[in-house]
Amino acid sequence: MAEPATPVRLNEKFAQFDEHWSPKIVAEANGWHIKLVKVLGEFVWHSHADVDEVFWVIDGTLTIRLQDRPEVQLAAGDVFVVPRGLPHQPVAEQECRIALLEPAGVVNTGGSGGELTAKDSWL
Amino acid sequence: MAEPATPVRLNEKFAQFDEHWSPKIVAEANGWHIKLVKVLGEFVWHSHADVDEVFWVIDGTLTIRLQDRPEVQLAAGDVFVVPRGLPHQPVAEQECRIALLEPAGVVNTGGSGGELTAKDSWL
Repeated sequence: MAEPATPVRLNEKFAQFDEHWSPKIVAEANGWHIKLVKVLGEFVWHSHADVDEVFWVIDGTLTIRLQDRPEVQLAAGDVFVVPRGLPHQPVAEQECRIALLEPAGVVNTGGSGGELTAKDSWL
Repeated sequence: MAEPATPVRLNEKFAQFDEHWSPKIVAEANGWHIKLVKVLGEFVWHSHADVDEVFWVIDGTLTIRLQDRPEVQLAAGDVFVVPRGLPHQPVAEQECRIALLEPAGVVNTGGSGGELTAKDSWL
């Protein structure tokens, strides 16, 4: 039995970093990670072949463009699951704070790579 | 590739039910469920032998009593992972809205059973 984690105060965690598109792991359970990300502008189009990706908007608004499907508009308190294999592009006109829920080890740019590829780190 | 789910607006979902301690599944990803629960009063002491349970407070305040450890106080925007095997008792003096993140199939009362055991349903 692992030690109980201390409570994770999301606002305190967000106050500890400024980078955009750089996920910070704040909790782990059953091999999943909860990651916090500040986003601004257009991310790269990408997909995750084997992983459904949960976007949870904490503050601000986020657009998720989807290949061959209508884009999705999300505000604070909205959750959206991008199914595995579906190319998507997150876009935020103003800074937006989101949480991602996904299995440990998922790379933010999926199979696309590029300069926005981030190395996840614990916060 | 599954159809993309529609966005889940948490506030709209919470407006659709009143029961306490009755988890409603609102999203699924990678075999995990996101469940919404309204809680009030003392839940039963219980544990989940093989599952870490993520509590995410959406609105209100929640106390989680832990066996042989200090209790944890959570407010809106706080996340806490109860590790597998650790007996715990959620308590809310006033109605509190929470999300649970856990593998599909987890029973709310763990191995304790009793009248508060709920059959999860999709909302």
